[in-house]
Amino acid sequence: MGKTMIHAYAVQSPGGQLEPFEYDPGALKAEEVEIDVEYCGICHSDLSMIKNDWGISQYPLVPGHEVVGTVAAVGDRVTTLQVGQQVGLGWTSRSCMHCEWCMSGDHNLCLTAEGTIVGRYGGFANKVRAHQAWAIPLPDGLDPATAGPLFCGGITVFNPIVQFDVQPTDRVGVIGIGGLGHMALEFLQAWGCEVTAFSTNPDKEAAARDMGANHFVNSKDPQALEAVTNSLDLILSTVNADLDWGAYINALRPKGRLHFVGVVPHAIQAQAFALIAGQKSVSGSPLGSPTTVAKMLDFAARHGIAPITETFEFNQVNEAIAHLESGKARYRIVLKH
Amino acid sequence: MGKTMIHAYAVQSPGGQLEPFEYDPGALKAEEVEIDVEYCGICHSDLSMIKNDWGISQYPLVPGHEVVGTVAAVGDRVTTLQVGQQVGLGWTSRSCMHCEWCMSGDHNLCLTAEGTIVGRYGGFANKVRAHQAWAIPLPDGLDPATAGPLFCGGITVFNPIVQFDVQPTDRVGVIGIGGLGHMALEFLQAWGCEVTAFSTNPDKEAAARDMGANHFVNSKDPQALEAVTNSLDLILSTVNADLDWGAYINALRPKGRLHFVGVVPHAIQAQAFALIAGQKSVSGSPLGSPTTVAKMLDFAARHGIAPITETFEFNQVNEAIAHLESGKARYRIVLKH
Repeated sequence: MGKTMIHAYAVQSPGGQLEPFEYDPGALKAEEVEIDVEYCGICHSDLSMIKNDWGISQYPLVPGHEVVGTVAAVGDRVTTLQVGQQVGLGWTSRSCMHCEWCMSGDHNLCLTAEGTIVGRYGGFANKVRAHQAWAIPLPDGLDPATAGPLFCGGITVFNPIVQFDVQPTDRVGVIGIGGLGHMALEFLQAWGCEVTAFSTNPDKEAAARDMGANHFVNSKDPQALEAVTNSLDLILSTVNADLDWGAYINALRPKGRLHFVGVVPHAIQAQAFALIAGQKSVSGSPLGSPTTVAKMLDFAARHGIAPITETFEFNQVNEAIAHLESGKARYRIVLKH
Repeated sequence: MGKTMIHAYAVQSPGGQLEPFEYDPGALKAEEVEIDVEYCGICHSDLSMIKNDWGISQYPLVPGHEVVGTVAAVGDRVTTLQVGQQVGLGWTSRSCMHCEWCMSGDHNLCLTAEGTIVGRYGGFANKVRAHQAWAIPLPDGLDPATAGPLFCGGITVFNPIVQFDVQPTDRVGVIGIGGLGHMALEFLQAWGCEVTAFSTNPDKEAAARDMGANHFVNSKDPQALEAVTNSLDLILSTVNADLDWGAYINALRPKGRLHFVGVVPHAIQAQAFALIAGQKSVSGSPLGSPTTVAKMLDFAARHGIAPITETFEFNQVNEAIAHLESGKARYRIVLKH
């Protein structure tokens, strides 16, 4: 394999266009698999990395961390996957496997975990590699053409449901009905929760209800927000904008949690008294561990949950990125070969 | 009982001196008990109420919500207490007993709970009344002369240990080694945790170690704070001052929690990315439910845990309040008859 070049799309500098780019991946490591990429979702964090918004990008940068494909080769010590198996790969491509967090099943919290597009080349390519633990087999019944976004956006919103032991009797709010939020509505409906969608766009109400929302709140309307005071056990924020978080903390019932899966520009502000009086929490979480991803995939397959996607050919990648950037994607974009 | 006047100390206006004050409590209600006050701790929130810092004070105001005394009379429907029994009474004197929270054992989260000194007269008096559910019997082995502060300051720091299922294997930090913080150190040492005290006053190190701290961090030293990056599962903040909360969030390990039991003046600021990357929480909690108070009293009695107190006679109440306000109390003041 060592001499077979990988054909990818890379940007050469911050904010640049994606252009064909070849690289030699070297010898396959003992615990790595090589995946023939069939589909790759586009995530807002691909855009952030292209632009070096977080100051961690290295160029040439090959985006792509919502990969679905087929195992093409396995390293000498790979025991869990076989050539020909269909797998997905998300934000993380490797964790140390030996620290306290990896050893506790919380591989997603490994402090030295490797990002698929951080300091290495990602899934906008014909092939991509990963440690065997992070290439998760697709269960039967999951459509590979739309499964890609589950591996980043999907697990981002599914993970807190598992981490915080959300119950089907809980009342859950979702802020932002976009790439992440629409999957959150689908998961939470199937989980049995009473679901409230919060959106600044009242035109999204019908779609939000179709996706699983029992209630819809126009979050630009302060009275509508005040009307849900003290009513929700969990609110998941999927947006990248600063909002009046105090109003959402007020919307929580006692013991409630305002939980962030989207990075917002400025510090979240919370009044101590509001947290103390109702025993409330403000928190965040990253993507899930490999076992949580597998749990999500099984749950999605059993309940017929799939991201709602628009599909572009890989050679239309720049058009696809522009479409994402316009805010008009409904709701997640997938590239295919 | 109806015609027996209660002899109390009240302030007549915000920030005033405490002066003798008599009131007729009326007929004892069916589920109420009347307590002969023997001791009453002084809490910072008595001071806040005297000054109307929270805008909820009514005058004449009788402070006092860390009462220890003996049941002197019981209402017609009181089933759990008898005349002569020694009990304590804290911040809450009544909850509705019928809402979802009361019915779930979370009486402390009852949205219509009554505060002992909010809109009624408190424990700086010879007698005080409360609903039977909130007068908690003292177990054998607990010294009534020092137990008062357990009913507000003590339960405030003990409650999160129970609510968040703190384990003896956890590493816990306590910010502020004062009235609340010193009890937190005692509880956490007995709970089996590895305990770190954070204080702006390096002179408190020896005392903090005596009370149970395994480590001491001078929180004015940024390098000392940075040295504990990523090391704590829980940090309890007992202070009333604004600190650099981002530094404390950094001191948390993955899944860690920065928890507030003290009201700080300005909004707590938390960067979304810091919460998300490590699955961290920022939270608060009020006092505990009656069953949690009982659990705390039993734990304190078994482990010989007692607040460290200074005692004043009730007729020295203004001197005692001045001593509290000076910040020199070590560590909690109790009034006695």
